[in-house]
Amino acid sequence: MISSKLPKMFYGGDYNPEQWDHETQLEDLRMFKLAGIDIATINVFSWALIQPDEVTYHFEELDQYINNLYESGIYTCLATSTAAHPAWMAKKYPDVLRVDTNGRKRKFGGRHNSCPNSPTYRKYSEKIADKLAERYKDHPAVLVWHVSNEYSDDCYCDNCEKAFRVWLKERYQTLDQVNKAWNTNFWGHTFYEWDEIVLPSNLSEHSGNNSSTFQGISLDYSRFNSDSILACYRLEYDAIKKHIPDSVVTTNLMGFYKPLDYFKWAKHMDIISWDSYPGLATPVSYTAMAHDLMRGLKDGQPFMLMEQTPSQQNWQPYNSLKRPGVMRLWSYQSVAHGADTIMFFQLRRSIGACEKYHGAVIEHVGHENTRVFREVAELGKELQLLGNKTLDATVDAKVAIVFDWENWWAIEKSSGPTVALNYVDQIHKYYAAFFRRNIQVDIISVDMDINKYDIVLAPVLYMVKPGFATKLEKFVEAGGTFLTTFFSGIVNESDIVTTGGYPGELRKLLGIWVEEIDALLPEQKNSIILKEAFGDLQGEYGCGMLCDLLHSEGAEIIAEYGDDFYKGMPVVTRNTFGQGEAWYVASDPEDRFLDGLLGQLAANKNIDSLLDTPEGVEVTARTKDGQQYLFVMNHNATAQSYDLGKGEAHDLLTDRPLSGMIEIEGRGVQLLEMK
Amino acid sequence: MISSKLPKMFYGGDYNPEQWDHETQLEDLRMFKLAGIDIATINVFSWALIQPDEVTYHFEELDQYINNLYESGIYTCLATSTAAHPAWMAKKYPDVLRVDTNGRKRKFGGRHNSCPNSPTYRKYSEKIADKLAERYKDHPAVLVWHVSNEYSDDCYCDNCEKAFRVWLKERYQTLDQVNKAWNTNFWGHTFYEWDEIVLPSNLSEHSGNNSSTFQGISLDYSRFNSDSILACYRLEYDAIKKHIPDSVVTTNLMGFYKPLDYFKWAKHMDIISWDSYPGLATPVSYTAMAHDLMRGLKDGQPFMLMEQTPSQQNWQPYNSLKRPGVMRLWSYQSVAHGADTIMFFQLRRSIGACEKYHGAVIEHVGHENTRVFREVAELGKELQLLGNKTLDATVDAKVAIVFDWENWWAIEKSSGPTVALNYVDQIHKYYAAFFRRNIQVDIISVDMDINKYDIVLAPVLYMVKPGFATKLEKFVEAGGTFLTTFFSGIVNESDIVTTGGYPGELRKLLGIWVEEIDALLPEQKNSIILKEAFGDLQGEYGCGMLCDLLHSEGAEIIAEYGDDFYKGMPVVTRNTFGQGEAWYVASDPEDRFLDGLLGQLAANKNIDSLLDTPEGVEVTARTKDGQQYLFVMNHNATAQSYDLGKGEAHDLLTDRPLSGMIEIEGRGVQLLEMK
Amino acid sequence: MISSKLPKMFYGGDYNPEQWDHETQLEDLRMFKLAGIDIATINVFSWALIQPDEVTYHFEELDQYINNLYESGIYTCLATSTAAHPAWMAKKYPDVLRVDTNGRKRKFGGRHNSCPNSPTYRKYSEKIADKLAERYKDHPAVLVWHVSNEYSDDCYCDNCEKAFRVWLKERYQTLDQVNKAWNTNFWGHTFYEWDEIVLPSNLSEHSGNNSSTFQGISLDYSRFNSDSILACYRLEYDAIKKHIPDSVVTTNLMGFYKPLDYFKWAKHMDIISWDSYPGLATPVSYTAMAHDLMRGLKDGQPFMLMEQTPSQQNWQPYNSLKRPGVMRLWSYQSVAHGADTIMFFQLRRSIGACEKYHGAVIEHVGHENTRVFREVAELGKELQLLGNKTLDATVDAKVAIVFDWENWWAIEKSSGPTVALNYVDQIHKYYAAFFRRNIQVDIISVDMDINKYDIVLAPVLYMVKPGFATKLEKFVEAGGTFLTTFFSGIVNESDIVTTGGYPGELRKLLGIWVEEIDALLPEQKNSIILKEAFGDLQGEYGCGMLCDLLHSEGAEIIAEYGDDFYKGMPVVTRNTFGQGEAWYVASDPEDRFLDGLLGQLAANKNIDSLLDTPEGVEVTARTKDGQQYLFVMNHNATAQSYDLGKGEAHDLLTDRPLSGMIEIEGRGVQLLEMK
Repeated sequence: MISSKLPKMFYGGDYNPEQWDHETQLEDLRMFKLAGIDIATINVFSWALIQPDEVTYHFEELDQYINNLYESGIYTCLATSTAAHPAWMAKKYPDVLRVDTNGRKRKFGGRHNSCPNSPTYRKYSEKIADKLAERYKDHPAVLVWHVSNEYSDDCYCDNCEKAFRVWLKERYQTLDQVNKAWNTNFWGHTFYEWDEIVLPSNLSEHSGNNSSTFQGISLDYSRFNSDSILACYRLEYDAIKKHIPDSVVTTNLMGFYKPLDYFKWAKHMDIISWDSYPGLATPVSYTAMAHDLMRGLKDGQPFMLMEQTPSQQNWQPYNSLKRPGVMRLWSYQSVAHGADTIMFFQLRRSIGACEKYHGAVIEHVGHENTRVFREVAELGKELQLLGNKTLDATVDAKVAIVFDWENWWAIEKSSGPTVALNYVDQIHKYYAAFFRRNIQVDIISVDMDINKYDIVLAPVLYMVKPGFATKLEKFVEAGGTFLTTFFSGIVNESDIVTTGGYPGELRKLLGIWVEEIDALLPEQKNSIILKEAFGDLQGEYGCGMLCDLLHSEGAEIIAEYGDDFYKGMPVVTRNTFGQGEAWYVASDPEDRFLDGLLGQLAANKNIDSLLDTPEGVEVTARTKDGQQYLFVMNHNATAQSYDLGKGEAHDLLTDRPLSGMIEIEGRGVQLLEMK
Repeated sequence: MISSKLPKMFYGGDYNPEQWDHETQLEDLRMFKLAGIDIATINVFSWALIQPDEVTYHFEELDQYINNLYESGIYTCLATSTAAHPAWMAKKYPDVLRVDTNGRKRKFGGRHNSCPNSPTYRKYSEKIADKLAERYKDHPAVLVWHVSNEYSDDCYCDNCEKAFRVWLKERYQTLDQVNKAWNTNFWGHTFYEWDEIVLPSNLSEHSGNNSSTFQGISLDYSRFNSDSILACYRLEYDAIKKHIPDSVVTTNLMGFYKPLDYFKWAKHMDIISWDSYPGLATPVSYTAMAHDLMRGLKDGQPFMLMEQTPSQQNWQPYNSLKRPGVMRLWSYQSVAHGADTIMFFQLRRSIGACEKYHGAVIEHVGHENTRVFREVAELGKELQLLGNKTLDATVDAKVAIVFDWENWWAIEKSSGPTVALNYVDQIHKYYAAFFRRNIQVDIISVDMDINKYDIVLAPVLYMVKPGFATKLEKFVEAGGTFLTTFFSGIVNESDIVTTGGYPGELRKLLGIWVEEIDALLPEQKNSIILKEAFGDLQGEYGCGMLCDLLHSEGAEIIAEYGDDFYKGMPVVTRNTFGQGEAWYVASDPEDRFLDGLLGQLAANKNIDSLLDTPEGVEVTARTKDGQQYLFVMNHNATAQSYDLGKGEAHDLLTDRPLSGMIEIEGRGVQLLEMK
Repeated sequence: MISSKLPKMFYGGDYNPEQWDHETQLEDLRMFKLAGIDIATINVFSWALIQPDEVTYHFEELDQYINNLYESGIYTCLATSTAAHPAWMAKKYPDVLRVDTNGRKRKFGGRHNSCPNSPTYRKYSEKIADKLAERYKDHPAVLVWHVSNEYSDDCYCDNCEKAFRVWLKERYQTLDQVNKAWNTNFWGHTFYEWDEIVLPSNLSEHSGNNSSTFQGISLDYSRFNSDSILACYRLEYDAIKKHIPDSVVTTNLMGFYKPLDYFKWAKHMDIISWDSYPGLATPVSYTAMAHDLMRGLKDGQPFMLMEQTPSQQNWQPYNSLKRPGVMRLWSYQSVAHGADTIMFFQLRRSIGACEKYHGAVIEHVGHENTRVFREVAELGKELQLLGNKTLDATVDAKVAIVFDWENWWAIEKSSGPTVALNYVDQIHKYYAAFFRRNIQVDIISVDMDINKYDIVLAPVLYMVKPGFATKLEKFVEAGGTFLTTFFSGIVNESDIVTTGGYPGELRKLLGIWVEEIDALLPEQKNSIILKEAFGDLQGEYGCGMLCDLLHSEGAEIIAEYGDDFYKGMPVVTRNTFGQGEAWYVASDPEDRFLDGLLGQLAANKNIDSLLDTPEGVEVTARTKDGQQYLFVMNHNATAQSYDLGKGEAHDLLTDRPLSGMIEIEGRGVQLLEMK
């Protein structure tokens, strides 16, 4: 069994006592108790306070915060405070300031403002982590270490440029290898000396985020930038571990955050933690998928929900309130997908600067008689009753979807065939079809073991990394079901096309050859016409965006295009390969088609829905010590009903037995211990 | 009685003789006479001509222009020419060139191009004003001094940065005070030395005009920038006054121009002057409100309409012609709201550079046989007949709307709750409801006396400055009617939230507590449901954008929300406070609701419409020596009628008596001397 | 007869053997033969490969490529490789790197990246052209020289700034002349020293592409920039000519490419060549017009189609495949308008960097069994059968449309009256009306002879250059028909307004005076009401965007406005002038109106349609040795029919006689040798 590293299911969040006077801090402690809060993340942005100059460190206040909290029964998640460098540092050592993609040297301000290759930043961020760990290594209150905060963005300064060349030397050894990997004979880019290489930016190869004239260097810059920031994290990580080898160290991630390859990062984190901020228009299935990605980062290990808002955000264009019940519903949704903590940003609202209109457990009014506080306190009470029943419980999915950051970077830096292709949206389309059926999915990397799954999907597997095609072939040969889509198998890990016919290394497995790729205008459509019924699928379905013009080389043609000059060419194929099947979906279909297709693939593998529920009622399962817990979550505003069939359950949240037809209130949650 | 400082009602505008040969100048004089023009603003952009190097000044040509005009009966409004520095100055002293918010040092070009903290600019702009005043102090033609031109924009250079720190020291004395005012414990921004503070720009705290991560520093920068530019103005002002203590000195303002706090500026201006350029889509009520703001700057003193176009503009996307009659109509509208001059940009169209497609009294064709010239000349004749009857006349409003620049800056730099909130649009919504009823309004600052009004409105009074809440309380206690809206009473003048419950310092006066603020998507709506009829108001009205979730703490609930989870919560409240009432409108209502609400509030105070007129027929009054003059202005293209009732009037423009039902032609104007 | 300089009609395209191994190169040769390819453009981007440092040159590989191709019967179009400088050069001599309009110094990357006034770039680009010419001067394979590639963009570095001042001295001799030409008395811009002048950029007079505060300097910068880049071209041109006086030297142009004044360039090119890349939404008439512009650059001389894609592009947002038959159809369209070669970008698809998803004759699959290759090979076969029948054939148009780059720059940098005015779109509107009638048009410059035409149109002739008005008067006097539109005759070549009444120098010829110009919102319309029927025109037609308010000064009023306060004023006029007529269209009419108007103007001059065909079936004629060849091109997807009437023809593509009603298949082409 996987252990989550946490002794209990924590409830709490970010707290900034340094912004308040002593009296208010005491009032906070009183209210935390009312709310059932038992963990506080502190010291997130206190670097300037703790270290007023190069040599001085003041930990006295921090000591008090930790002690006071601990005496009130609240553990500390201790941040290292390095997400914003002090102003004095920026003045004295401008190398800590970033340069943006337009070549503009930043000045002091904001946060996430440090160059990851700044010698000064690396020196002092490591040092403060070291000092914190040394000081609190034996403090019983400090249970989790929170390095920096929401690492992000990029830098294009001279230090980064030099570091990039060193990184390249390590990756490629010789310039010949670089020239080959980047295909520099194109547009006369041959490099003869390492220092001829400059960072790709809006001053050189780029014009905006998704545009590059040389994908090879852009891709390597993305890798380098993610690695550079990871190196900063690791310096702090190691500094903490030096003093406390068994500490639990994390940093708060941000779901599908493009610049950082979290699968690579996860290897250096003791537990995953993340900040979940769905917008007004975010589908609940998308939030679910993000949770599953976070769970997938460490191969199924439970994670911390480090931040969510109790009510509203401030940085959306329109910051809607979470409707009554929604905070609780979404809290359970995170647990349903693997969270072992429920934490908020923020415990008390700040009064100045840009986050003062971000929701908090304690609002500006300062007392507990608010809707928001009541909902937080009620959930706190409920969680205390629930205890650690679901702590460390796992998710047993038979379906996996492959997600790959480098593939993401490569697809969206591609010049052609269409600007409409959004990798995460494609992943989500396939994910959502399972979500709608209450079939659980793991989100996995290309490095992970796929043999434990019955079905593996890799939508838009544009980049095929060394060995992955073979791995897929073995999986299918042994009986697995594999599915991929248009614009797959095109390039290697340097974004160099695999010649000899698309989908390159996947051609044999899929039994097809893609001759051409047509891009449609947003308003243009084609159609998918089933040759014969497949499960519930029959007749015609819409598709669009990209249409591969392909030929079967052994694959069975399941459906054909209904339109245009390639009407009658295959659009969906199935290739029997060993004991298994490899599917290809050559265009971007409407959801209704995916519901039918993926439903039937699951049925063929005897993968059942956890429960059959009305639209908008989500069900997931976590299992611990052989006991299955079903989370039933009604995302609708109105009550719904579902049939438990022959099963019998106990609702842990109401402590009542349930069976037969069950009603669940609008935005309600039921946590069923199955008999 | 307030005196406007002007001996007569002037008619004229900007004139650039330096762009023309002598023959053309003579032709100009002939045509000015035809048009009844008696004032010309000259020397607006002649700095480079007058001062070809650091030590040389040539005033001979200017002498001639002034003399020639004077001999033709035309007075001079003498500009100081400092709105565009000479090219030689930019080359020799690059400190005059601005740096923009993206850190880009400007090069010579455009106008409004001087850094307000440039020592060079300050030295030479003061000097040329000094020299001009010295030379023309006794010239009988020079009646008004026009410093620079349309001061605007901002600068982020090192000189400004240093000056900002000096400004901060003056405001706060200590860094501790700065850290507190800006809440720098948020995001670790603590400053230990003054020179750690950098200007907030797109390189530090900002990302675009309405986005800041630290509102406190942004707000102070806005103050500092307005003050810096004002300091430039004052240097010239003082230089002129040194030679001509009784001179009339102004600079042309731009209505609701965000970067400059005109209430602060007005204290240093002898008379307000402004440039009115409504766009194709500008409502006439908006123009009216801008005039009223200009009149309000010096507490009701008449102002100069320094610029308007006789026909079309050049810098709009689509530069429509003013329809026949519209120039006259809008000229009278400015007088109706307090203008004591009618002036144009420009008297003769230039032939090169960016304003050559801006309308002018004398068009490119060069003769008087044009529609535009004819309309100008007809108005000139009419004004001569009218004489000084309305000169120095005042407006006696019983309603005031509070407008505050710092509040504007703070609201729109706020991060959350919605990007849809536009302060001036909110002011305009309330203004327009009175406008539609022909009830006059003063636009006032928070510093002005409010006790002379019956009704005071302060829509979106987000920032409550020291003492203002008490002032409002006293006003209401004494019987006044006060109204404010959602997102009011939130912060102090440093944008620090007043804790203890919104609307902070206004809570007692309003008798409510706002618990939460919901932001709606643009397409979302809620509704206002009257509990019982109030005046003409009954039933249901639409509202949106922001919805306060509030509780009465004594206030009477006039209307409730009709929708969403806060259906039934108060949305409009009235609190009886002493002898008066304090109203709160918790969401953004449709105009129809405001018509009813404000109409009834006025009725309750016995404030009547000046005249009851059809839609689009505006009426204002100016009073002089006890005589009321009614301006009736038909903004419709077609004739309309209105009933003068028992009143009798004399139309000064046609010299005819009027009574009973009166017809007013499309785009017509009537100026009624009431009996 | 005009000679095209080419010995035969070539078929081929861009080829980059340096990106491939020897085996692939051999395979290429085999496939080129299959496709009927007989020319390859090579060495386009090999500078870095050929010249690895300042002193070394390696031509051995290039020798081999040329020889191998030649031995396979393929001629070389030899590029000079200077469109992208080597990385070592950028490192060692940063002066080769451009500075953009925002003042950002570029770093190495992309292409078209060299400053045109960089001493380093000029030195080394001339040198490599010299070396190439010296080496291959006697090589029988090298038939065409291709200097650089798609010259483009602009630079704002210090070297350019200095060169601009030199350029200005040459143009104006004195600063007084500059001050006058730019009207610097406006906004105090007087220059006293040459080095006070800075380049107009986003740091000085500009804010974006179509915005300037000083049109005069902007216009001169556009001229200067075009000249600077032309100077680079000419250095290479001269270097080649030094060794090979009778060489055929070109550079590939880009149709309506705004920054470069191709009429000026054409004087220094031995043959015009261009790259045709219609987008998904480009009308076929627009492509036709671009071909006609290219033909017009050298007064009717045939040109090279240097690049087109065989299938799809990569840099459009949505890169649709060319439908079956479209590549052939558009190839013939280019020949139909004057092309004497059909060439592709690219012969083999690259595997890395930004053009790997651009179509190619040989796709990534690498073999000949693709739709694209088959279509290319079929066309190759067809062209071989056709031989040189149309080589050097000319187009005899009786209608000319004047197009002027400087006018384009001036119109779109204008501040007012409307942002909606797009010069090329206006040219296209008038062109398309002839296109729809199968009446051929020459696109000519203001310098060319107009007396050979019956009808000359100059839509939006905003800028009237010295002598052009007189030239037009002579043309009309002698019986010609001239037509121009709103916003014509306004300025001279320095963008200085011609005073005395619009349309300035054209006023006498047109017999009108334009008093005002009204700009309409996009959603606003006016109408054109015919006073009596004119040809097919009668009744009412829509118009908009700009509406001149004009008076006849002798011109006959053909139509009047139907709306607004200028209802009844003239909107279309005809002035009899000598033996001819001068027409004025005062607003932007709907296409239907132009069809009628231009149709009747043509009829009056006995200019007939080449053939009467259904919509979408285009017909052009080329004539050689007295033999007329009609190209009939069906741009519809479905078959159409047309009547050859009494004519008899031989279809050269099918080698069949044709007469009477003829069917042409969807996307079909017929090449009729007329009897």
